[in-house]
Amino acid sequence: MIKAGIIGATGYAGAEIVRLLMGHPEVEIKWLGSRSYIDQRYADIYRNMFQIVEDICKDDNLDKLAEEVDVIFTATPQGFCASVINEEILSKVKVIDLSADFRIKDVAIYEKWYGIEHKSPEYIKEAVYGLCEINREDIKKARLVANPGCYTTCSILSLYPLVKEGLIDPSTIIIDAKSGTSGAGRGAKVDNLFCEVNENMKAYGVATHRHTPEIEEQLGYAAGQEIVLNFTPHLVPMNRGILVTAYASLKEKVSYETVKAAYDKYYEKEKFVRVLEKDVCPQTKWVEGSNYVDVNFKIDERTGRVIVMGALDNLVKGAAGQAVQNMNLVFGLDESTGLDLVPMFP
Amino acid sequence: MIKAGIIGATGYAGAEIVRLLMGHPEVEIKWLGSRSYIDQRYADIYRNMFQIVEDICKDDNLDKLAEEVDVIFTATPQGFCASVINEEILSKVKVIDLSADFRIKDVAIYEKWYGIEHKSPEYIKEAVYGLCEINREDIKKARLVANPGCYTTCSILSLYPLVKEGLIDPSTIIIDAKSGTSGAGRGAKVDNLFCEVNENMKAYGVATHRHTPEIEEQLGYAAGQEIVLNFTPHLVPMNRGILVTAYASLKEKVSYETVKAAYDKYYEKEKFVRVLEKDVCPQTKWVEGSNYVDVNFKIDERTGRVIVMGALDNLVKGAAGQAVQNMNLVFGLDESTGLDLVPMFP
Amino acid sequence: MIKAGIIGATGYAGAEIVRLLMGHPEVEIKWLGSRSYIDQRYADIYRNMFQIVEDICKDDNLDKLAEEVDVIFTATPQGFCASVINEEILSKVKVIDLSADFRIKDVAIYEKWYGIEHKSPEYIKEAVYGLCEINREDIKKARLVANPGCYTTCSILSLYPLVKEGLIDPSTIIIDAKSGTSGAGRGAKVDNLFCEVNENMKAYGVATHRHTPEIEEQLGYAAGQEIVLNFTPHLVPMNRGILVTAYASLKEKVSYETVKAAYDKYYEKEKFVRVLEKDVCPQTKWVEGSNYVDVNFKIDERTGRVIVMGALDNLVKGAAGQAVQNMNLVFGLDESTGLDLVPMFP
Amino acid sequence: MIKAGIIGATGYAGAEIVRLLMGHPEVEIKWLGSRSYIDQRYADIYRNMFQIVEDICKDDNLDKLAEEVDVIFTATPQGFCASVINEEILSKVKVIDLSADFRIKDVAIYEKWYGIEHKSPEYIKEAVYGLCEINREDIKKARLVANPGCYTTCSILSLYPLVKEGLIDPSTIIIDAKSGTSGAGRGAKVDNLFCEVNENMKAYGVATHRHTPEIEEQLGYAAGQEIVLNFTPHLVPMNRGILVTAYASLKEKVSYETVKAAYDKYYEKEKFVRVLEKDVCPQTKWVEGSNYVDVNFKIDERTGRVIVMGALDNLVKGAAGQAVQNMNLVFGLDESTGLDLVPMFP
Repeated sequence: MIKAGIIGATGYAGAEIVRLLMGHPEVEIKWLGSRSYIDQRYADIYRNMFQIVEDICKDDNLDKLAEEVDVIFTATPQGFCASVINEEILSKVKVIDLSADFRIKDVAIYEKWYGIEHKSPEYIKEAVYGLCEINREDIKKARLVANPGCYTTCSILSLYPLVKEGLIDPSTIIIDAKSGTSGAGRGAKVDNLFCEVNENMKAYGVATHRHTPEIEEQLGYAAGQEIVLNFTPHLVPMNRGILVTAYASLKEKVSYETVKAAYDKYYEKEKFVRVLEKDVCPQTKWVEGSNYVDVNFKIDERTGRVIVMGALDNLVKGAAGQAVQNMNLVFGLDESTGLDLVPMFP
Repeated sequence: MIKAGIIGATGYAGAEIVRLLMGHPEVEIKWLGSRSYIDQRYADIYRNMFQIVEDICKDDNLDKLAEEVDVIFTATPQGFCASVINEEILSKVKVIDLSADFRIKDVAIYEKWYGIEHKSPEYIKEAVYGLCEINREDIKKARLVANPGCYTTCSILSLYPLVKEGLIDPSTIIIDAKSGTSGAGRGAKVDNLFCEVNENMKAYGVATHRHTPEIEEQLGYAAGQEIVLNFTPHLVPMNRGILVTAYASLKEKVSYETVKAAYDKYYEKEKFVRVLEKDVCPQTKWVEGSNYVDVNFKIDERTGRVIVMGALDNLVKGAAGQAVQNMNLVFGLDESTGLDLVPMFP
Repeated sequence: MIKAGIIGATGYAGAEIVRLLMGHPEVEIKWLGSRSYIDQRYADIYRNMFQIVEDICKDDNLDKLAEEVDVIFTATPQGFCASVINEEILSKVKVIDLSADFRIKDVAIYEKWYGIEHKSPEYIKEAVYGLCEINREDIKKARLVANPGCYTTCSILSLYPLVKEGLIDPSTIIIDAKSGTSGAGRGAKVDNLFCEVNENMKAYGVATHRHTPEIEEQLGYAAGQEIVLNFTPHLVPMNRGILVTAYASLKEKVSYETVKAAYDKYYEKEKFVRVLEKDVCPQTKWVEGSNYVDVNFKIDERTGRVIVMGALDNLVKGAAGQAVQNMNLVFGLDESTGLDLVPMFP
Repeated sequence: MIKAGIIGATGYAGAEIVRLLMGHPEVEIKWLGSRSYIDQRYADIYRNMFQIVEDICKDDNLDKLAEEVDVIFTATPQGFCASVINEEILSKVKVIDLSADFRIKDVAIYEKWYGIEHKSPEYIKEAVYGLCEINREDIKKARLVANPGCYTTCSILSLYPLVKEGLIDPSTIIIDAKSGTSGAGRGAKVDNLFCEVNENMKAYGVATHRHTPEIEEQLGYAAGQEIVLNFTPHLVPMNRGILVTAYASLKEKVSYETVKAAYDKYYEKEKFVRVLEKDVCPQTKWVEGSNYVDVNFKIDERTGRVIVMGALDNLVKGAAGQAVQNMNLVFGLDESTGLDLVPMFP
C-alpha cells in the first residue's frame, strides 16, 4: 500500500483528494494536514466523512511527514510548497503540488503574475508539469509533479491538438472560461456567499488571471513558438464544473474530418479525454464527479474560425483526480486506478 | 457475474441503477429497457455515459428478458410491474420493483391511494418490502422485492427506533419532508422547468401523498398497532436529496441517552444508517451520491416532543442504491458490494 | 417629504429598505448608516445602486441622526437598538427597529433566548409589535415599533385566524419553516458560502431558535392563553423566501367553509395577505420581491389536523416591506404607499 | 390611458410585460391573449398575479384586438406576427413585436437563419428596430416596432461605441454570451427541466444561433460596413440575466481614457445604460428586475485586444422592459415611465 499525506486537506481540493483516495485500492491516507483545524477530527470539518474517515487533522510538518509516507499532496496556497520543499524531502517521498509553485518554468513570470518571491527556484527545472495526457513519460520519472490548474487543464486539453498540428494561428486564441464556485475555495468571503453567487454571473480577473501564463507556456511548447492569448474566467452559480469556450482562426480552410482526425490522433487512446460526436456540445454535468474531460469543436466557415469547447469537474480532473492520476503514473500503477468514476447525473 | 436487466432505464432512478451497476464488480447489465427510446443508443440519452455504456435501448419485454438475465429492476410508473409480472417470470429471475405496486399489503389501500386497479394482487403477499435494515432476512429469500419509496425510506428509518421501542405516541407523528427535484422524474412538465423550481419552494400533495399509507403500514408493523399520521412533502430547488423532519410526543420524559440507546440498538451495526452525534443536524449534501441515511433527534423538553431528522440521496438510498442493496441480499453477496460510495461534497 | 435614516444599511434587510424607499413617493433617505463601511460610497457596496444612490455611508450616530430625520430604521444586530435608544431620541423621531430588542414583552424571556442583557427594558412596554394586520391601530400611535421577525410574520399570519377563532388546540401547534439564505445575513461565514448551501438542505436551531418565544407570545395573545409550541427552521438553497408549514389538531370536526370563513374574517380586506383558493399551495416564488403573504390551509380528516401554509419574501414582508408598512401607518400615509410591488416571476 | 393588448401573454416575456404594465401609470391592459389558455383566468396560470390581475385569457384575434386597444405587444413565436399583420391593423394600432419577424431588413437572411417563409415582407422596410438608445427618433414615429432580441440588445449596446467610433477592427469581433434559463421560454422540454439545467452549463447553437445576423446587421450600420462575427450563446443555471463578454482587436494602441470617452459619448445621458467605473465587471444580479444594461471594458495591452462586458435582465431590457420603453417613445411619454425599477439584490 502506498502511504499518502495531504497538506491542505480541509480545502475543497484537499477534501476531494481524500474522497478519491478512500476509493483507491492501493493507497492509505496517513496524514491529514490542516493548519486551520489542527487536532480537530477531520469528519467534524467534512461531515460527509462521518464513520468513513476517523483521523485527526495535524500540522503541516513536511519534514516529519516525509518520514512517514510515500507521497505528499500539497493542496495549499501559492508559495507554501516552494517555501518548505528541500532535497531531504524529495529524496524520501514523491511530491505532487496542486499549487502553481512549480508550474511555470520562467521564475520571473511566476513572480510577476503571482506577486510573490519564489523560495525554491532551484527545483523548478526538475519539476514535471503534470498534465498526464501530454507529459506521461516524464511524470513517471518525476520526484516533484506540478499539478496543473483547473482552468489550465481544460483550456490546454481543448486546444492542444489544434495547436500541435498547426491548424490554427496561435496569435488568435481567445479562451472564455466559466467555473463553478468551488474553484474559489472554502475561505469565508462575502463575494462567495450563497446570496452573492446564486442567480448571478460575472467575469473576473479580466486580462490579469494567473492561469494565463501557464496556458501560454504549455500551448507554446505545443506550437513550438511563444504564444500570447486572452483568457477570461467567469464565476457561475454552480458548485462544480468548468466550461471552456475557445476561439481561434484556422490557418486555412479545413474539413470537419481533418480537425476530427487531429483530435483523434492525440485522444483516441486517452481514457479520460472524450472527444464528443459531431455537433454535440460538452456539458459540465456530464463529467461531474468524474475524471473525464469532454471536448469538441465546431468550424465556422463564415468567419474562418474554429470554436473549441471543453468541460471538466474542476475538483476532479481539474485538481484531485489529476493529482491521483499523476500519483498512479509516478508509482507505476495503472493510470486509472481509483479513477473509474462514473459521472453523476443529475 | 449476475446478469441484470433494467426496465425504465432512461428515467432518473433507472439511470442511477446504471451508474451504480457500472461500478459493481459482480454484475453486468444485459438489457436497458426504455419504451420511449427504443433502438436509440443509451449514451445519446444520458451523455455522461459516453464511452462507458455502449448499449442500445430495448423494448420492455419482460418475458424475453427473463430468459436472458438473473435479475430485473423495474423502474417504471405505478401499475406497470403489476401488469406484466407472472409466475413464469418469477420462476426464472428475481424482480426488484422500484414502483409502489407491491409495497402495500392491503390491495384496497393501494387502489384507493393510487387510483388504479391492481393487476396482480396474487403476488402482493409474497413480495417482500425491501427496506434492508428492517427486513434483511426476508429479502434474502425473496423472488419479488418491493423497493421502498424515497420519502418512505427516509421517514421510516428516521422514526423506526422510537416507534419500535415505544418511546413515542404513534398517533402524534407528523412528518414534514423536503425533496430535491429529481424525485419528480424526467418527464417534460412545466411545473418541473428550471425557472419554475429555482428560487422557489412549495408543499404539494398535502394530506394526499401516496407515500403516506406506505409509511403508516411499515411503522404500524413496528408499533404493533395501526398508525395514522400526517405526511407533507415539499419541493426544493436542488437536484438530489430528501430531508425529513418528524415530530412526535414522547410517551414520558426521557433522557438524550435513552433515546440515543434506542437508535444505537437498531443502527449501530448498520453501515448505511449513520446516527449523528448530539446536536448535529443531518444535511442532504453530506450523503449526496452515497447510500447513507444520516439520522438524528432532538428532545424538546418544553413541549415534550422529540424532533427527528433524516437525510438521504433520493436516487441512491431512496431508489437505486437500495435496489442494489436488495439485489446483493437476494444473491447472497456482501450487502454493500458496489455501494462503497463516498458522499461528494461540495 | 419624510426624512429617513437607516442604521445597518449595508445588511441585506437594510439594503432592501433602501430599495423600497427609492420607490416611495413620500420619503427621502438622508442617512445611510453602516459601521463597517463608513465613508465608503453606498453604491460601491451594493452596485445595483450605481447611479441610483449617490450617498456615502456614515457612522451609527443616533443622537445626531435624530436631529436630521423623521424616522430611523434600525436594521442592526440584537442589542444595538436597546443600547442606544433614549427619551431624547424618541421625543424627536419615530424608530422602527428591525431587531428583536423590543418584540418580547417579558424581558426575562428575551434575555434567556438571546443570551444578552437588555439595556433599555423601560421602553419594552411602550414599543408596539409591528404586525400591521393585527396591531394596526396601536402602530399608528407608536413612537417605537418593534418590527417582527421574518419567520415570525409568516408563522403568526398563517395561524392567527385559527387561534383567534379557537378552531385549533394551541398546545398541538407545530411549525416547520423553511427559509432562503438571505435571512442568514451578509456576514462572511463558511456555513453560508455558495458551495455549502447550494444543493443542500438542513434544519438548524432545532428547539432553540429565537423566533420561538416571539411566535408563542403573539399567538398567545390571540388565544387568550399561554402557548408553547415547536418551531423548526430550515435553510434552503434560494436567496429569498420563507415557507411555513404548520400543523395543529382541530378542536372539533369542521368544514372547509368554516375554516375559510375564519381566514376571510381577518384577511378579506387585507391587501397584503392573500388567502389562496382551495387546494392551491403557497409558493415562495409567487410573492418574491413583494409585500404579500400567501396563506392557505388543508383539513386532513384522517388525522383531525389542519395543515396551514404561508409564504412570504423574508426581505420584504419579513423585514423591509413590513418596516415601510409600519412607517406608513405611523405617519398617517396610505398603508400600501410605495409597496405596490408586483411579485416577480420567474 | 393607453389601452394595451398582449398576444402571448402567458410566455415568460409576455408575463413580464404584464408585470411592468401593472406598475405603469399611463397604461391599462385590455386583452391578455394566450392561445394555450383561452378562457382560463390569467392568475391561475401566473399565481403571482392573484388578486392583481383579474382577467381571463383570450384568443389571439388581432383584427378584433385592433378595434379595442391602442397598442399590441406580440410576444409570440417567430412567424406569428408576420402572418397576421396587415394594413388595417397598422392603421388602427401601434404594434410592438417581440419576435424576430421584423428585425432583419434582408428577408433572405431572415428566411435562411429562421428556416421559415416570411409572410409579410412588405412591412419589413417600414418596421423600426427598437433599440431605443440608437434609434430613438425613428421609434417615435413608428407604427411597427421590431423589439430586439435579448442577446442582441446586450451585445450591440456593449460594442456599439467601439464600432461606431472605429476603435476596433470589426472583423475580429467575438461575442461569448451567457444566459439564464428564462430565455428558453416556458415550453415543457426535457432540456429545460430543473435537473438538467441546475449544476450544469453548456454552449448551444454554436456558429448557428439566430441572433447572429441581427447583431451583425446592427453593428454593421454602426461600422458603415458589413460585419461577420462569432456569437456563441451558453445556458447558465439561473432564472434571469444575460452576460456578454466580447473580444475585438483595437485598431491602434489607445488609452483607457480614450475608450471611456467613446462610451461616455453615447451613454452619458442614457438612463438605462450604466458604464461602470474602471475595473468593475458587470454582474447580472446588479440589474435583475430592472431595465438597466451595465457595460464596461478592459484593454489588454499584451494582446492588443479590448474585452467588453455587458449585463442585463433578459426579460426586462432584453424583452418586456425594452418593449415598454419603445411604447413610451411611440406614445410620446417620458421614456422611463413605468420603468423606474430598482434592481433587486440579492
